[in-house]
Amino acid sequence: MDKEETKMKRKYLMTPGPSPVPSFAREALSREIIHHRTPEFRQILNEVNEGLKCVFCTKNPVLIFASSGTGAMQAAVNNFFSLGDKVVAVCGGKFGERWRDIAKSFGLDVVEMEVEWGAAPAIEDLRKILDANKDVKGVFTTLCETSTATVYDIEAIGRVTKEKNLLLIVDAISGLGQDKLFPDEWAVDVVVCGSQKGFMLPPGLSFLSLSRKAQDFMKNSNLPKYYFDLNKALKSYEKEDTPYTPAVSLIVGLREVMSEISKEGIEKRWERFKMMANAAGEAARALGLEIFSKRPSASLTAIISPPGIKSSDIVKTLRKEYGVSIAAGQDSIKDKIFRIAHMGWINEQDLIMCFSLLEKVLKDLGYKFKIGASISRLQEVFYG
Amino acid sequence: MDKEETKMKRKYLMTPGPSPVPSFAREALSREIIHHRTPEFRQILNEVNEGLKCVFCTKNPVLIFASSGTGAMQAAVNNFFSLGDKVVAVCGGKFGERWRDIAKSFGLDVVEMEVEWGAAPAIEDLRKILDANKDVKGVFTTLCETSTATVYDIEAIGRVTKEKNLLLIVDAISGLGQDKLFPDEWAVDVVVCGSQKGFMLPPGLSFLSLSRKAQDFMKNSNLPKYYFDLNKALKSYEKEDTPYTPAVSLIVGLREVMSEISKEGIEKRWERFKMMANAAGEAARALGLEIFSKRPSASLTAIISPPGIKSSDIVKTLRKEYGVSIAAGQDSIKDKIFRIAHMGWINEQDLIMCFSLLEKVLKDLGYKFKIGASISRLQEVFYG
Repeated sequence: MDKEETKMKRKYLMTPGPSPVPSFAREALSREIIHHRTPEFRQILNEVNEGLKCVFCTKNPVLIFASSGTGAMQAAVNNFFSLGDKVVAVCGGKFGERWRDIAKSFGLDVVEMEVEWGAAPAIEDLRKILDANKDVKGVFTTLCETSTATVYDIEAIGRVTKEKNLLLIVDAISGLGQDKLFPDEWAVDVVVCGSQKGFMLPPGLSFLSLSRKAQDFMKNSNLPKYYFDLNKALKSYEKEDTPYTPAVSLIVGLREVMSEISKEGIEKRWERFKMMANAAGEAARALGLEIFSKRPSASLTAIISPPGIKSSDIVKTLRKEYGVSIAAGQDSIKDKIFRIAHMGWINEQDLIMCFSLLEKVLKDLGYKFKIGASISRLQEVFYG
Repeated sequence: MDKEETKMKRKYLMTPGPSPVPSFAREALSREIIHHRTPEFRQILNEVNEGLKCVFCTKNPVLIFASSGTGAMQAAVNNFFSLGDKVVAVCGGKFGERWRDIAKSFGLDVVEMEVEWGAAPAIEDLRKILDANKDVKGVFTTLCETSTATVYDIEAIGRVTKEKNLLLIVDAISGLGQDKLFPDEWAVDVVVCGSQKGFMLPPGLSFLSLSRKAQDFMKNSNLPKYYFDLNKALKSYEKEDTPYTPAVSLIVGLREVMSEISKEGIEKRWERFKMMANAAGEAARALGLEIFSKRPSASLTAIISPPGIKSSDIVKTLRKEYGVSIAAGQDSIKDKIFRIAHMGWINEQDLIMCFSLLEKVLKDLGYKFKIGASISRLQEVFYG
């Protein structure tokens, strides 16, 4: 019998989305369905709307869509600009490139700011691009570029875009909840997120916050829209409703996870995940490995595979032999790095479990290091 | 203590979406989340893709999106046509009007075929419109117009559109699974559906089937698209994948419901729901009431409220006093009709429960009729 087939083989999800869904959220997903145009659901929606403001650290409305995160990214493209408008897309990984591609699909004039994969954008380079392109109306960038495990300095980017009165739109899909973000203080106009990472839910919901400035931009956009029409969504939001049938069960689950996030406190969570990221980096170095990112995110860690070992082989073996799912690289760095998530429900003990099996796999693949080195390092960082 | 607050008060969902989610599906929704790019999920996706073809009664691919049904409706507008293309939207209710509105949002030249609410489109009228507009490229219509509880003669419409080589696009969101539909035999190119009605799941998934002709139309469309780009979605489908993170938990639930639908058999289900619709009509007449639709759907029944009684009062009292949710009318017929769903998981016994309380509410609101008349009629139809 194939090992995969028995349920006795435990599985561990350490991928940067979907990330594990805790049992208290899964219980909520399995409750009897309720109608969305009832006082009962309105009450849930109200709580969720308030909770989202806390988790997003914003006073702005946060809209909810039934879609993956990419749906909300599209909404952030075709609601604020018009055909031919010039925008900058910061491209230092797969998700920055997604901004570029969506913006091009909708006929925007996209200035691509190329950033070396693994690096964060240099603020002086962004300033140069904006000085050379006085007609730019907005900047699209990323909080945590998941493909390289890099966190961008949104605060610094926000200073530049605010000074030039541009719309700043940030994909925080994998970063939100782990990587520090103060949208209002940092002049971020639009923050996009999804349900399956820091929010600890299955995929299927996306979120989008709207500053006052973003709401003004919305009024002048002439790009075609319907399902992701933010004017319509905002109007429904103000009436404590949704324009189309919402993904009721996921929203019921959302209430549960947000209540638990609030209990821990968002800033405490930021600290905890930053500590986990530091620990993962230290653990990698204890094995003689290097981390890929020059500005590591608190949400996941990308480790460069040892010479002669393809990262996809590490990933495959971990999953097949030990039930542990991590992620390889994407596109040109597919076989160069492997990525371990520490987001949402993933905790310190999961990292210890993951590195203990990573050591086993590295050893079996012929890499030389001192067994237990990463675990001792994690223990030191976590438990002092 | 408010009656609403105790969990001892049972609730009954008889609305035309969301409709009740059976416990075997809810259990599936609460399982541990799995990653979507794994052999395990690919296996589920394969089963689901095959199952969808059965439920849709088509040999064509059926794509899955994370969105409400309206998302797939939008996909059916901006993937087949180009700016200024002329299309017909059959408007005999709220959901026909949605086709018109989406098509206008994307800059199509929409010829509105007005149909009296409660009636089905007359085929000779459609033919006249098409004869007068030789440049029409496609027709948007509805299997079950939920706002009026009317089923359209898609087979007859398909004969006309096929003869004229037009694309025929059908919103089957509330009808699929109850109202008979043979897309391939009837020359329907695109069928759109959602998860929260006949499919017995929470809202959050939408479906769209694509004929060969639809796939040809897709190649020439110049309207902007990204999240709902069907070319990209079809390419992923062919590789047993999805372009963006799918709503994993709902798809796991989908496998469970489709397996049960297959066991009963789709044609058997059509018969059973048609019988339930007939029974609901008979029951209404036994109370001296009339049904609203001239061509009643098998998915829900719209009953005209007695003179002097607002249908919204019936709906409100049923929900508040007895926990039974049905739907009032929409827009101009808001207070004229009330609508009882018989779709998905709703069965004969639910109708008996619903009518027994409907009688109680009608009596309390001062309407005169013979108590028990509707129940006896339902019993006769159901149990002979």
